[in-house]
Amino acid sequence: MAHDIRIVTEAELRGALSLDLSTVDVIEAAFEALAGGTVVMPPILSMELEAANGEVDVKTAYIPGFDGFAIKVSPGFFDNPKLGLPSLNGLMILFSAKTGLVEAVFLDNGYLTDLRTAAAGAVAARHLAPAEVETAGVIGTGVQARLQMQAAHLVRPFERLLVHGRNPDHAKACAEDLKDALGIAVEVCSAEEVAARSQLVVTTTPAKEPVLTADMLHPGLHVTAMGSDQSGKNEIEPQALTAADLYVCDRVSQCEVSGELEAARAAGLMQDTPPELGDIIAGKATGRTGPEQVTICDLTGTGAQDTAIASHVIKLLGDAGTVIQA
Amino acid sequence: MAHDIRIVTEAELRGALSLDLSTVDVIEAAFEALAGGTVVMPPILSMELEAANGEVDVKTAYIPGFDGFAIKVSPGFFDNPKLGLPSLNGLMILFSAKTGLVEAVFLDNGYLTDLRTAAAGAVAARHLAPAEVETAGVIGTGVQARLQMQAAHLVRPFERLLVHGRNPDHAKACAEDLKDALGIAVEVCSAEEVAARSQLVVTTTPAKEPVLTADMLHPGLHVTAMGSDQSGKNEIEPQALTAADLYVCDRVSQCEVSGELEAARAAGLMQDTPPELGDIIAGKATGRTGPEQVTICDLTGTGAQDTAIASHVIKLLGDAGTVIQA
Repeated sequence: MAHDIRIVTEAELRGALSLDLSTVDVIEAAFEALAGGTVVMPPILSMELEAANGEVDVKTAYIPGFDGFAIKVSPGFFDNPKLGLPSLNGLMILFSAKTGLVEAVFLDNGYLTDLRTAAAGAVAARHLAPAEVETAGVIGTGVQARLQMQAAHLVRPFERLLVHGRNPDHAKACAEDLKDALGIAVEVCSAEEVAARSQLVVTTTPAKEPVLTADMLHPGLHVTAMGSDQSGKNEIEPQALTAADLYVCDRVSQCEVSGELEAARAAGLMQDTPPELGDIIAGKATGRTGPEQVTICDLTGTGAQDTAIASHVIKLLGDAGTVIQA
Repeated sequence: MAHDIRIVTEAELRGALSLDLSTVDVIEAAFEALAGGTVVMPPILSMELEAANGEVDVKTAYIPGFDGFAIKVSPGFFDNPKLGLPSLNGLMILFSAKTGLVEAVFLDNGYLTDLRTAAAGAVAARHLAPAEVETAGVIGTGVQARLQMQAAHLVRPFERLLVHGRNPDHAKACAEDLKDALGIAVEVCSAEEVAARSQLVVTTTPAKEPVLTADMLHPGLHVTAMGSDQSGKNEIEPQALTAADLYVCDRVSQCEVSGELEAARAAGLMQDTPPELGDIIAGKATGRTGPEQVTICDLTGTGAQDTAIASHVIKLLGDAGTVIQA
């Protein structure tokens, strides 16, 4: 039976939604819902295409009370830059949670994922970073390095920003972009200096060897590690997780297979079940208890965020998109 | 970076592809590829939406040598008929296997799934049914009951067809449709009679209690069970699997969690690893060895079939569809 399906392009989505506090609030609500125990979020479907140096992930979640649920497909093909194409792409599909009918297809090339991932960083900063953040830092120089710092600045309006990247040219370009975007002082420096001088650090790398080690922690530091999203990736030294006063997962079941918890568990550390970010938002677990604590938040990316951002953007689209009767 | 994505509706897909021998051959090739050991086919992502009496499955597979891979989303919302909507819906997305870019979105409402599922039944009949099938039977009266019999008739042009359904009106309607479609004699009768008089039987039900029991088997019978696709469904009595000379899975890892093998294993039977349909097509396992054997094939539906049908239909579309630059 034919029904209307709205097809929306990346340009149309960019016109409707940007990274602002309302986006952060939407993602915060998704994390809080995760703590309620009624969200249905199956394990990520993941497929490797070795011959093409590619992988594809599929995420979804049903959040009770939401009219729809999203299914998000994220391909990552790492030889694409040689062809002049971005590595990351994908789309999101919004379904009715009542009938299962397709309501909209968001041909976003990963834009909604970028936003909901950055917004999760802001949620982590809001609930775990010290109340006063004068200096923030980022280790990594890609799209998420930029977006994470813009998102964090919404909830912790820091005055100085430090950038570290393995490639000095990339670090410089990232620093310049962020200086323009935020209108604050931005410096390029070593990873050690980023950590030493910041109260809030976000790691945004695909590292397989830690870029932040236990000896770089200091009182009053919050770290959000958002780069690891596949088995074998590891941004934070396992000893740093035990050295911190508090280590928090977006979803424990994901962090132990594709986040920082994987390497820590493999090293025989962190055998207990850590709290989840949603538990802290909902007041079911204790967050930071003082300005001198060291906290770490591990973000692997959840289907609940995808359902939340897709359900949010559909309300902001107005007449944008192409309606197809299918 | 914007690129062209083709959006194709169910009506456009129906105009381009129907159930014929070329479709059967395409699906047979996908099964054969599965036997090669190089296909990447992750476990099905499955999410239950209990509040809406719904579920959604996501399937995919990468078949080496294919230019693209499909991701197929199949929602089933079983209260939909009360709203005048079909229970099953969904869409398929075709990605480049080289870059991961979205190439096409098939808004097929399950049409391509219907075809590739029926074609798999024909592949099973071609390789496992006796060479001579005079009478075929179907237990079940839905869309697949009709399509499975049409598909089977392509490879075993039987002269008589028997239909059984729990609801006599549905059985009568199904029989009349198949009489029109195939131009042969069709009768409605009991499940026992369907089995007793047929050389080829297909079960197409969502049964949780067996509709075909061991005492209904007889020499020279082939049974294809295609209804079970979720844990807890069971069309064939476990003892029938052991009583048969040969039991074949489309994919063992799926059949043991969502096919007929699940109930058999739970009953302590069928502890060995059965052969897969692709192994028999590829000559790596022995199929039927004589006209008097009893064979059973268990179809749960594979992502490889989805990738195959999506890769096939894209070549047949001509200019059909709406191209969107996204």
